Amino acid sequence: MIFRYAVAPADRLAVRAIAESTGFFSPAETDVAVELVDERLRKGPASGYEFAFAEEAGELWGYSCFGPIAATEASFDLYWIVVAKDRQRAGIGRALMVESERLIRAAGGRRIYVETSSRGQYEPTRAFYQRGGYRIEAVLDDFYAPGDGKVILVKVL
Amino acid sequence: MIFRYAVAPADRLAVRAIAESTGFFSPAETDVAVELVDERLRKGPASGYEFAFAEEAGELWGYSCFGPIAATEASFDLYWIVVAKDRQRAGIGRALMVESERLIRAAGGRRIYVETSSRGQYEPTRAFYQRGGYRIEAVLDDFYAPGDGKVILVKVL
Repeated sequence: MIFRYAVAPADRLAVRAIAESTGFFSPAETDVAVELVDERLRKGPASGYEFAFAEEAGELWGYSCFGPIAATEASFDLYWIVVAKDRQRAGIGRALMVESERLIRAAGGRRIYVETSSRGQYEPTRAFYQRGGYRIEAVLDDFYAPGDGKVILVKVL
Repeated sequence: MIFRYAVAPADRLAVRAIAESTGFFSPAETDVAVELVDERLRKGPASGYEFAFAEEAGELWGYSCFGPIAATEASFDLYWIVVAKDRQRAGIGRALMVESERLIRAAGGRRIYVETSSRGQYEPTRAFYQRGGYRIEAVLDDFYAPGDGKVILVKVL
């Protein structure tokens, strides 16, 4: 498995395919995933979105998307880590987390924020980040919808 | 004093002038204020930025900027309330807060979020919102910089 950082137009379809493969994201969420790729293709680094793609023999297995938070000195958002359904449970998500942290540190980042939902569906997501050293710093009740709060996790590098 | 909601190209200069008049914002923050006006002029409602301008006889006394938070059912950000230096302490900020809340409620909003800095300079800002019924829901330590955290306030409509 290798990491690739340059974003290509073909990644629009590949990102949509692996996001859909997971069965985890709503159609609207999948659209947002593709929009971040579009933003990056259009604006380059000024988009604020950086990517790490994990692939082998040209097949995309997973990717992460992250970027600096405007108006902060050294805080980054880690927006997504997605692994294709048939490649899960092989450590690829963890490898993408570690690689993203390496890149963020190299870019001067000192704090990484992850935002997720308080719903039960996202319990494995929260556990994944907590195993990686992220801790829950805040919960905004009913942020997304009644009964669906926003959980903010942070890792200090 | 009347409220106006349509954004005009002349508001770029007027917003810069009143932001600078306060002596409160950094040049970078003032640039962001103008950029939000630009985004609204370019994209219209799709920008996600709504404005309420308080003025009399064509003179801008203050304004607020707010908008729906993507991927939420009924949450809004209240980004800024700014009042010209020589019009402060006359209730205009409070009037802009109340008017913004009315517009947000009419647009289906049920929760309003305000983000500000934990630094001492922003203590009057936090007190202003707390008097208006906003409560501190979370503090992200060192978010903006070491010693400069993000304070998240919320008001449930």
